Amino acid sequence: MAENSFDLSSYLKERVKKVEEVLEKYFPKEGDYGERVVSAGKYSLFAGGKRIRPILCLAGCEVVGGNWEKILLFSAGIECIHTYSLIHDDLPCMDDDDFRRGKPSCHKAFDEATAILAGDGLQALAFQFFTHPDLVKYVNKRRLLKAIHIISKAIGFEGMVAGQMVDLLMEGKKGKAKILKWIHLNKTVKLIEASVLSGAVLGGAGFKELKALSSYGKNLGFAFQIVDDLLDILGDEKKLGKKTFSDVKKQKLTYPSLFGIEKTKELAEKYVKKAVSALEFFGKKAQPLKAIAEFVLHRVH
Amino acid sequence: MAENSFDLSSYLKERVKKVEEVLEKYFPKEGDYGERVVSAGKYSLFAGGKRIRPILCLAGCEVVGGNWEKILLFSAGIECIHTYSLIHDDLPCMDDDDFRRGKPSCHKAFDEATAILAGDGLQALAFQFFTHPDLVKYVNKRRLLKAIHIISKAIGFEGMVAGQMVDLLMEGKKGKAKILKWIHLNKTVKLIEASVLSGAVLGGAGFKELKALSSYGKNLGFAFQIVDDLLDILGDEKKLGKKTFSDVKKQKLTYPSLFGIEKTKELAEKYVKKAVSALEFFGKKAQPLKAIAEFVLHRVH
Repeated sequence: MAENSFDLSSYLKERVKKVEEVLEKYFPKEGDYGERVVSAGKYSLFAGGKRIRPILCLAGCEVVGGNWEKILLFSAGIECIHTYSLIHDDLPCMDDDDFRRGKPSCHKAFDEATAILAGDGLQALAFQFFTHPDLVKYVNKRRLLKAIHIISKAIGFEGMVAGQMVDLLMEGKKGKAKILKWIHLNKTVKLIEASVLSGAVLGGAGFKELKALSSYGKNLGFAFQIVDDLLDILGDEKKLGKKTFSDVKKQKLTYPSLFGIEKTKELAEKYVKKAVSALEFFGKKAQPLKAIAEFVLHRVH
Repeated sequence: MAENSFDLSSYLKERVKKVEEVLEKYFPKEGDYGERVVSAGKYSLFAGGKRIRPILCLAGCEVVGGNWEKILLFSAGIECIHTYSLIHDDLPCMDDDDFRRGKPSCHKAFDEATAILAGDGLQALAFQFFTHPDLVKYVNKRRLLKAIHIISKAIGFEGMVAGQMVDLLMEGKKGKAKILKWIHLNKTVKLIEASVLSGAVLGGAGFKELKALSSYGKNLGFAFQIVDDLLDILGDEKKLGKKTFSDVKKQKLTYPSLFGIEKTKELAEKYVKKAVSALEFFGKKAQPLKAIAEFVLHRVH
């Protein structure tokens, strides 16, 4: 990548810092009696997440010419949603994971009831952020409503929630590639796509821009999930902050279990290539999005 | 109430019918693989709820001169939130209730994971409804964003979620009236108040109208929760659709446990009176809201 002098590392560092400042500033204070659940929400929200989804949201805004600094609250809301989904996924009756990002998962650090409520609170907080006066004053209101609609659809019965449901039902069953792709699409891809798209909508995107970014987001999302599956086998437990081979132990339906490691790697590369080619439309402005897509593969190379 | 010829029963019947039509029409279809969680959400959403919160939202819109039929989708979203909160409250690690409205609670009819996901999906669905194009086209967008903000704040870390957390922590402990009031305020009152207020905001309410309705909603909310506590002792299991004395068995902090039945009844009456007096501002237009407040007391007379 000699021709690509874009410095992704400083780019990510700057954005992550800004997103985290907003999360810190707007997160409810631990006052009165409700302290415990606020602490639990904060515990998981500030557990070292990579903030990929908010960064994609900001980058989606920027690539269509919008001002990303005006929509930081929106991007922060997306991270709240992502964190809520991790807390609930880790619960004993779901994936039953005791560790997340190298720390005890929320229900281990607190308890099940607190973890469920912390997740519920984080989902509500996302929509508080999305409609916060400090965001509303900067953005087109019709576009903001559209962006919220895109996110809420991606995470509900026609998206993330359905994906997690089927992921659980498939545990231990022999599955087919078609179902696996459906699970990935709903559980992971739709929110990643929605993150880029909502940012673009807020940035003023037109139909063609949204179409290109939808293709980028979808392909990136699939690559992302496939790499995640690979890391469960190939990853370093210390770096991952969780046990490897947990999918294998649970007999989860994954790409490596269906196709083997080499073919799965090829598949991830194919998706990243497709994601990058969807960006051609934007020319040089798409450097950050391109670099992010390529970075996804780095984790397994 | 000879002077009050308002027919609450037909009023409620008409509104409930309209709200349920919208819920039916816009609820995601059970397609593909995600069927189970959609069924679970529907199971609880159509389990015979009284639809009090959506009706308060519609009445709040109407009392300030708005067109309630245009905001049905918004009111339906509030019912999704209420249902999600019941599903999660009933979970074994929370209140551990096996019955709700005379039917097995969601985690009993399905299982824990499905119930958690159905609740999560219903919360997301609420915000899908709030930002649905079929609603957005009818209402002022600034007001819609404000209404969503009111609801999301009422149900999160500064509202319902915190209330449920402290309610759980207080089980079996001897509590004081101050904490009990805080629990009621957050767990129940804020969403009831927000239901009326969001409807009023959408209907075009000004500052003074919102102030009066906030007082109405708060007082109604307290009355509502106190009556609920009373029904746990005085109610008919068949009519309630759940076991009585469940609060007593769990040593829950309630008004009857603190003050006895007679004093608690007086307290409920006091709150209803206050709620009704806050409506003076609106004159005859407030008949439905007034009748709803008086109806709350009927349940324990």
